[in-house]
Amino acid sequence: MRILGIDPGYAIMGYGIVDRVGSSLRLVKYGAVTTDKDMKMPDRLKALYTELMEIIADYEPDEVSIEELYFNTNAKTVIYVGEARGVALLACSNSGLPIYEYTPLQIKTATTGNGRAEKKQMQLMVQRILGLDKIPKPDDAADAVAAAICHSRCGELQKKLYLMK
Amino acid sequence: MRILGIDPGYAIMGYGIVDRVGSSLRLVKYGAVTTDKDMKMPDRLKALYTELMEIIADYEPDEVSIEELYFNTNAKTVIYVGEARGVALLACSNSGLPIYEYTPLQIKTATTGNGRAEKKQMQLMVQRILGLDKIPKPDDAADAVAAAICHSRCGELQKKLYLMK
Repeated sequence: MRILGIDPGYAIMGYGIVDRVGSSLRLVKYGAVTTDKDMKMPDRLKALYTELMEIIADYEPDEVSIEELYFNTNAKTVIYVGEARGVALLACSNSGLPIYEYTPLQIKTATTGNGRAEKKQMQLMVQRILGLDKIPKPDDAADAVAAAICHSRCGELQKKLYLMK
Repeated sequence: MRILGIDPGYAIMGYGIVDRVGSSLRLVKYGAVTTDKDMKMPDRLKALYTELMEIIADYEPDEVSIEELYFNTNAKTVIYVGEARGVALLACSNSGLPIYEYTPLQIKTATTGNGRAEKKQMQLMVQRILGLDKIPKPDDAADAVAAAICHSRCGELQKKLYLMK
């Protein structure tokens, strides 16, 4: 099964694609879609949507794992991140992909065993779990890969919870 | 010039289409795109996007006026509204429409002359300005029509400000 992890953002949207074969995981691709701060928001959203649709078409993931937003940033930024996240959800939905959502706490717990782990610690675990030479950069890409790993480990439970909703 | 006004929301997205001919305004169509609370968020976003694209294709507006979000609601709801608003911006952007954004204060001022006007007062002014038999319902549709009226009145100034950004 191929999982697309997404770390939503409007300036930088991280993505990471992971294959699960049995109990082993393989990193297929990671990166970040970026938009220029001089672009107007509708143009940024269009660019994010278009690039995400291309990534989905190129790599054909089976399922999507996306980070839920949390609210300890300023409200203005949260709105913009929300708009970008909506567009990411739409790209996945328009591509017919099942979408699963995880909180930062769940993603940290699934990758490090500790929901309060530092970002750096989570990145090192991402590197170790996938047997990489280095930590994926930028941070947004590492976070997206972590979301994909989280879904590969919690997906079955999450599907049951999802059906119960 | 034909203006599409949008009041963003994920359960109810209001829209209103207004034609400006010289200094007179004519209401062409108003309504609300609604999504069921039992639907998953990606499905709701897809439904909003699809219906908004159909409205744009059917009525061919020249410009879009959309309300900016404000933050005195709870953070969880703001995220969802942000996601829906992102999808609305994308529909307009993918349709090649110029998008203008107004705060609730600007919309109230443009319709009633008073930025602190009650919602009901603004709705009555919408009815009066357009010479309608009754106030457009639901409230979200009336708000969307008000956004369109606001742009018809402030659009030239807004375009100058937009170019200065």
